[in-house]
Amino acid sequence: MRKDKLLMTPGPTVIPPRVLEVMSRQIIHHRTAEFEAAFYEVEENLKYVFQTGNPVLILASSGTGAMEAAIANFFSPGDRVLVVSIGAFGDRFAEIAKAFSLNVEKLSFEWGQAADAERIKEVLDSDVKHEIKAVIITHNETSTGVTNDIEAVAKLTRDTDRLLIVDAVSSMGGLDLKTDLWGVDVVVTGSQKCLMAPPGLAFVSVSEKAWKAYENSTLPKFYWDLKKYKRGLLKELSENPPYTPAISLIMGQAEALRMIKEEGLEKVYERHKKLALATQAGVKALGLELFAREDVSSYIITAVKGPAGIDMGQLVKTMNIKYDIMITGGQKHLKGKIFRIGHCGYVDIFDVVKTFSALEKVLLELGYDMDLGVSVEAVQRSYFG
Amino acid sequence: MRKDKLLMTPGPTVIPPRVLEVMSRQIIHHRTAEFEAAFYEVEENLKYVFQTGNPVLILASSGTGAMEAAIANFFSPGDRVLVVSIGAFGDRFAEIAKAFSLNVEKLSFEWGQAADAERIKEVLDSDVKHEIKAVIITHNETSTGVTNDIEAVAKLTRDTDRLLIVDAVSSMGGLDLKTDLWGVDVVVTGSQKCLMAPPGLAFVSVSEKAWKAYENSTLPKFYWDLKKYKRGLLKELSENPPYTPAISLIMGQAEALRMIKEEGLEKVYERHKKLALATQAGVKALGLELFAREDVSSYIITAVKGPAGIDMGQLVKTMNIKYDIMITGGQKHLKGKIFRIGHCGYVDIFDVVKTFSALEKVLLELGYDMDLGVSVEAVQRSYFG
Repeated sequence: MRKDKLLMTPGPTVIPPRVLEVMSRQIIHHRTAEFEAAFYEVEENLKYVFQTGNPVLILASSGTGAMEAAIANFFSPGDRVLVVSIGAFGDRFAEIAKAFSLNVEKLSFEWGQAADAERIKEVLDSDVKHEIKAVIITHNETSTGVTNDIEAVAKLTRDTDRLLIVDAVSSMGGLDLKTDLWGVDVVVTGSQKCLMAPPGLAFVSVSEKAWKAYENSTLPKFYWDLKKYKRGLLKELSENPPYTPAISLIMGQAEALRMIKEEGLEKVYERHKKLALATQAGVKALGLELFAREDVSSYIITAVKGPAGIDMGQLVKTMNIKYDIMITGGQKHLKGKIFRIGHCGYVDIFDVVKTFSALEKVLLELGYDMDLGVSVEAVQRSYFG
Repeated sequence: MRKDKLLMTPGPTVIPPRVLEVMSRQIIHHRTAEFEAAFYEVEENLKYVFQTGNPVLILASSGTGAMEAAIANFFSPGDRVLVVSIGAFGDRFAEIAKAFSLNVEKLSFEWGQAADAERIKEVLDSDVKHEIKAVIITHNETSTGVTNDIEAVAKLTRDTDRLLIVDAVSSMGGLDLKTDLWGVDVVVTGSQKCLMAPPGLAFVSVSEKAWKAYENSTLPKFYWDLKKYKRGLLKELSENPPYTPAISLIMGQAEALRMIKEEGLEKVYERHKKLALATQAGVKALGLELFAREDVSSYIITAVKGPAGIDMGQLVKTMNIKYDIMITGGQKHLKGKIFRIGHCGYVDIFDVVKTFSALEKVLLELGYDMDLGVSVEAVQRSYFG
């Protein structure tokens, strides 16, 4: 007997059965009252999760598509932007900006560290001609398991004419992100992480300040033209959304957002935090070290330094093939050096217990010296104690 | 008791229960052997349906996104292209090309007519400096129910250095399109029409000639950068596809493509043709006229001139609200003037019988003079006679 894979990964994450059930129903047409009701419900609940009164635009694409939209809509070739990178996804945002001929100043921090707002301030202060039009930063860097302090960065941009663009693909709906209160202009995310739906939908919120920048943008756009989505939403166009939406995914996302609303955002954040702390406790009980600096270690995904002599590829593979639990290895130069346990979306404490129970067994099989049960006990004590 | 909506629409179309069942399963991760197997199976079966040996690239987006990709990958600002339009979707391709600063020459034909290859030849012949780099045309124009003769157009471009780009969003898997044999360079389609999966996936095939044009293209692209998808497919990158795919939709599409392969492409085409002819027979038996010229009337969707005195909006709405059968009205200037019956994808003769059975009742309710049963009989005679 084998159970479904338990995805302790940073996306896709496990889809709640309620969501799967909705997606198993016969499709409805998108130009109907029934779909319209679901669409606007998703819109309202996205605003709740984004903590914004701004429209949240719904795209049929993966998160990277929404990152591209965040570039194509607010800039023109040659515009100078500051991209802050603490890992692979920060690097990707810089690559996208470069592909669109922006003049990219990149401020990189060592993988495993968070961005230092003081350093960002220095760069902005030294930009005396005020050429930098935006700061672009990742909220939660999945590749390193580190969360950036967006509130601190927002303080540097909110009362200026610079935009703050945040990649919240892996954090939205798991980590507190006060879009309006902090003054974040553009926030992008995807459906397949904390939002508990399958991949294929991306969401972008846009502030008034960003809409002003939109008016000056000359980069070519059609599918990503966010104003069309906004006008559709506001019923200023004959059709909303402007292009055929990913109907089944939107119906599934509607159900997943209902679940988030039922639990309540504060409790969702608290659950993610407690699961992360339990995971950290488990890691330590195994005698292993966090890859990230502990005070910035993510509540979405925990990156762990691989113990000496243990093959990370083998560890991840055995967890998957033998015990049907998916964790992930490192990306880029961290390949073979770390493993990562995701604990976001439809995850509870017993999923973490199960993961450590299997992890102990696999580590023992691979020759790591430890006592069976130590990490599971630590996980339980952290969460229930 | 009410049954699920019967979508006699040109996308989304009814999803086969087998596909819904697959999509109701727990999600799997995309960096696994299981997903890889499904992905390459989809790739192989897409090549079968596209009738091509070229790679078919799989995007998470709606069809319009793939149309944008077809522009962004093969051209540079100022490049001259000939866009042939016979309706709303031809117009859309011209708009996309303009949004990307191409120098668009548009050759429009009256709505309801097909493109005249002679006229296209004249335009190309008069381009003595050979400035026109591509011909862009819709295979099946959903807005008017007309099919273009792609083979005839391909003869004009295949032995030249001009590209032929075909929007096959509504035709692929329903109408014969011999991509390689005819010499079509770029073909784009979506998952939600004849391919019987939900919307949210788009597919693009690219010829060797088009890959050469890619090398000269300077338009900005990242998410749409087709070469990355090709390199991923060929395992030249560490990850395939390059960005998180719409996993559940791909698993659903895999099942739908299995069904197409089981039926066989020739039989699929024959079924679409016979359903279209049965629909045309039903329309005539009602005393109504086709909107399209009969010899080019689409096998995907039949556009019908609304009878005098009958409110088209009311007709379409009553079919939907009272009888749970979705047909569609006209788009743009055809609104209120025509109605359209889609017969593509997971549709059989009894769906057409049911549609006409309801249509007769609704027409009678709206005061149209006719005998109950005439069109259903004609549909049956056409198909079974």
